[in-house]
Amino acid sequence: MIKKLVAEFIGTFWLVLGGCGSAVLAAAFPDVGIGLLGVSLAFGLTVVTMAYAIGHISGCHLNPAVTVGLWSGGRFPAAEVVPYIIFQVLGAIAGAFVLYLIASGQAGFSLAGGLASNGYGDHSPGNYNMVSGFMTEFVMTFMFLIVILGATHKLASPAMAGLAIGLALTLIHLISIPVTNTSVNPARSTGPAVLVGDWAMGQLWLFWVAPLLGALVAGLVYRWLSPDE
Amino acid sequence: MIKKLVAEFIGTFWLVLGGCGSAVLAAAFPDVGIGLLGVSLAFGLTVVTMAYAIGHISGCHLNPAVTVGLWSGGRFPAAEVVPYIIFQVLGAIAGAFVLYLIASGQAGFSLAGGLASNGYGDHSPGNYNMVSGFMTEFVMTFMFLIVILGATHKLASPAMAGLAIGLALTLIHLISIPVTNTSVNPARSTGPAVLVGDWAMGQLWLFWVAPLLGALVAGLVYRWLSPDE
Amino acid sequence: MIKKLVAEFIGTFWLVLGGCGSAVLAAAFPDVGIGLLGVSLAFGLTVVTMAYAIGHISGCHLNPAVTVGLWSGGRFPAAEVVPYIIFQVLGAIAGAFVLYLIASGQAGFSLAGGLASNGYGDHSPGNYNMVSGFMTEFVMTFMFLIVILGATHKLASPAMAGLAIGLALTLIHLISIPVTNTSVNPARSTGPAVLVGDWAMGQLWLFWVAPLLGALVAGLVYRWLSPDE
Amino acid sequence: MIKKLVAEFIGTFWLVLGGCGSAVLAAAFPDVGIGLLGVSLAFGLTVVTMAYAIGHISGCHLNPAVTVGLWSGGRFPAAEVVPYIIFQVLGAIAGAFVLYLIASGQAGFSLAGGLASNGYGDHSPGNYNMVSGFMTEFVMTFMFLIVILGATHKLASPAMAGLAIGLALTLIHLISIPVTNTSVNPARSTGPAVLVGDWAMGQLWLFWVAPLLGALVAGLVYRWLSPDE
Repeated sequence: MIKKLVAEFIGTFWLVLGGCGSAVLAAAFPDVGIGLLGVSLAFGLTVVTMAYAIGHISGCHLNPAVTVGLWSGGRFPAAEVVPYIIFQVLGAIAGAFVLYLIASGQAGFSLAGGLASNGYGDHSPGNYNMVSGFMTEFVMTFMFLIVILGATHKLASPAMAGLAIGLALTLIHLISIPVTNTSVNPARSTGPAVLVGDWAMGQLWLFWVAPLLGALVAGLVYRWLSPDE
Repeated sequence: MIKKLVAEFIGTFWLVLGGCGSAVLAAAFPDVGIGLLGVSLAFGLTVVTMAYAIGHISGCHLNPAVTVGLWSGGRFPAAEVVPYIIFQVLGAIAGAFVLYLIASGQAGFSLAGGLASNGYGDHSPGNYNMVSGFMTEFVMTFMFLIVILGATHKLASPAMAGLAIGLALTLIHLISIPVTNTSVNPARSTGPAVLVGDWAMGQLWLFWVAPLLGALVAGLVYRWLSPDE
Repeated sequence: MIKKLVAEFIGTFWLVLGGCGSAVLAAAFPDVGIGLLGVSLAFGLTVVTMAYAIGHISGCHLNPAVTVGLWSGGRFPAAEVVPYIIFQVLGAIAGAFVLYLIASGQAGFSLAGGLASNGYGDHSPGNYNMVSGFMTEFVMTFMFLIVILGATHKLASPAMAGLAIGLALTLIHLISIPVTNTSVNPARSTGPAVLVGDWAMGQLWLFWVAPLLGALVAGLVYRWLSPDE
Repeated sequence: MIKKLVAEFIGTFWLVLGGCGSAVLAAAFPDVGIGLLGVSLAFGLTVVTMAYAIGHISGCHLNPAVTVGLWSGGRFPAAEVVPYIIFQVLGAIAGAFVLYLIASGQAGFSLAGGLASNGYGDHSPGNYNMVSGFMTEFVMTFMFLIVILGATHKLASPAMAGLAIGLALTLIHLISIPVTNTSVNPARSTGPAVLVGDWAMGQLWLFWVAPLLGALVAGLVYRWLSPDE
């Protein structure tokens, strides 16, 4: 069990360091920056790479919403839900902290830049209101879990699941960074928010409630939809 | 059968919400927008993710032209063609509607922006005329079906079909967004057109006729080309 | 045999229409154009999609240099080399012609834009001289064939070969579009050159000689390098 | 053994020619340049393509840190470590030299541009200090090796390892080009530094020490983490 939890810690550390790191360090680099497309790819690739690296150890959730959705879909034991979530959140905070250390090696860096925190209203990249933000996080997490539950189903292609799931996260970012900076993952939101504090902590509730709700519903829907479960 | 139809509904919902959503919300975001390359990737990834998620439930057509091409290629029963198409169109309209709800959470949003509807002439992104538009939709759908029929052939690699087919849709968008905003999918065209009305409804006929025709011909050609059918 | 040749015709048609098409229609689209990155991806995806669609029919060469390299590597019968090359060139010309028809549906289109022809010196996108161009085409085709011969070797992963080979073509374009507009494929160069005439025909010799030479050498090298051939 | 070493030479030649080549030739091409996103993709694809081409010959390390990490993880014999590293460095120098030959075919080219050498402080693309640079190279190489050791573990999907590992390198570049121009590979750093000399040689020590240290630690950590080793 401890190995599973350490794997989740490392994986979520990587998701935040890689995803938020690409956003903070490289997205708006002058002239040749990677933009939202590069950030979307980076988030997805953290999942692709970890899926093949630690999938056989912990299942590679890296996300409390995924853990809850797999439980609600009848694929994960209730007793392991809370420990998984704790280590995911700890890994996310560690990832945000290492990102902060690296980023602060550039003259002029300030946490006020937000460290790729999620937000709505005035803190949405495109100033989308709270209702848009909640709806986006709910629907995107719902679809993310439909992909996860489907791609890991025994009738699907097991070797391709990690690629399909990671690319689903890329797709979700391609759509929704302008709305909420894209969470669909309460741990990913908590990591930078702990360092940034202020508004990022104040808006954090939405990025726990909406994704967990979307995941919960997806688990139930897929159970009905699935050919033989 | 109802599970298959619900799967097609969810999948086509995702294709429109994800593909058109990335175009409406993120393509032209200031400085770091994802551009036509990001939109092309997003459309393709809706198919890649759904192929592995629901391919084992409904076959993951998400597109009346695909359903017709598979029928004309001798791979799909005639009796299921119309129900599949109805649920694809309903899913597309639902996807466009949720996109409208999210997008309207930004001050200044207007349906006059077109919600990523397809068009030709004055409504082609690059002002290409109707003949170019028809030819493009016909040839692109023809080639899309050649890829689909080939990649799902029993001599091909079954695990890779979803990836190859989704990336074919990305490729098609990389080529043809400037010409028609790229349809190759009558359901995808119908979703936004129903909300936008006006010229989008007036030009909708082309995005039914050309893709269906291209798919129909591809089915017949691949039947002859195929090693053992 | 005729089915193999028709498959090569369709595949090379798609390579030119898709690759050169993305360059002509979408690369420099105002503000949201796909750029050289999008064109690189498009060329690669024409091969990825065709590899899974027609690989089991003709082997999916789509390129005289590939055919020659496979022959020199001991993987392809001498008697089929010339027929393959003829149908590849015909397919490439057909692809360039359909692209011309589509592109000319925009006001102000002119063949003087070059239709994505390959060139060196004054006709290199970055004005690289002939020696750079020859070296680039030779080395890139050499490495392309190393990837092809390696990835289709019986000890490699057969299902992944199409993806690896297509992405090799993407990589080659990411490096070398500025030097020669990237050929590594005499058929791809011949298609647009036939329509553009003029300098494109005058410089066409390099895009036959350098790729064929690179492929020839690669076949011999890989034969020695290969574990059991 | 000689075939393995030649394969490592060719592969590392390709990594430097392709990765650094895309940066030097295409990253900042006017208007349609591939940017840091394209360079990230190019580096990753050199590994993807070689993994499937020569993985069955030499294991496709292409990187002294990978060789050391596999040794420290108990997957590679000590006796082959030094020969592998020698041929990787020779291949990298050859790759940098061919790149120099091609690049110098453009009027106005100068080695003072740096030929995509790695650096910190004044020679970091974003002027990040030495501590940030060291930390970045250490953590990125650590995670790179976790992915490599995990994805090639016997419980993972063997056919997907090459793709996951190559995309890990893409991800690492998406995050860290602004900090050090991204090495995680002492051979890749040595190639251009030998030609550029000057500051590039003076800062080269960091790009040997930090990656090798990160890889060494990753091997030990994965050994403990791994389900059955």
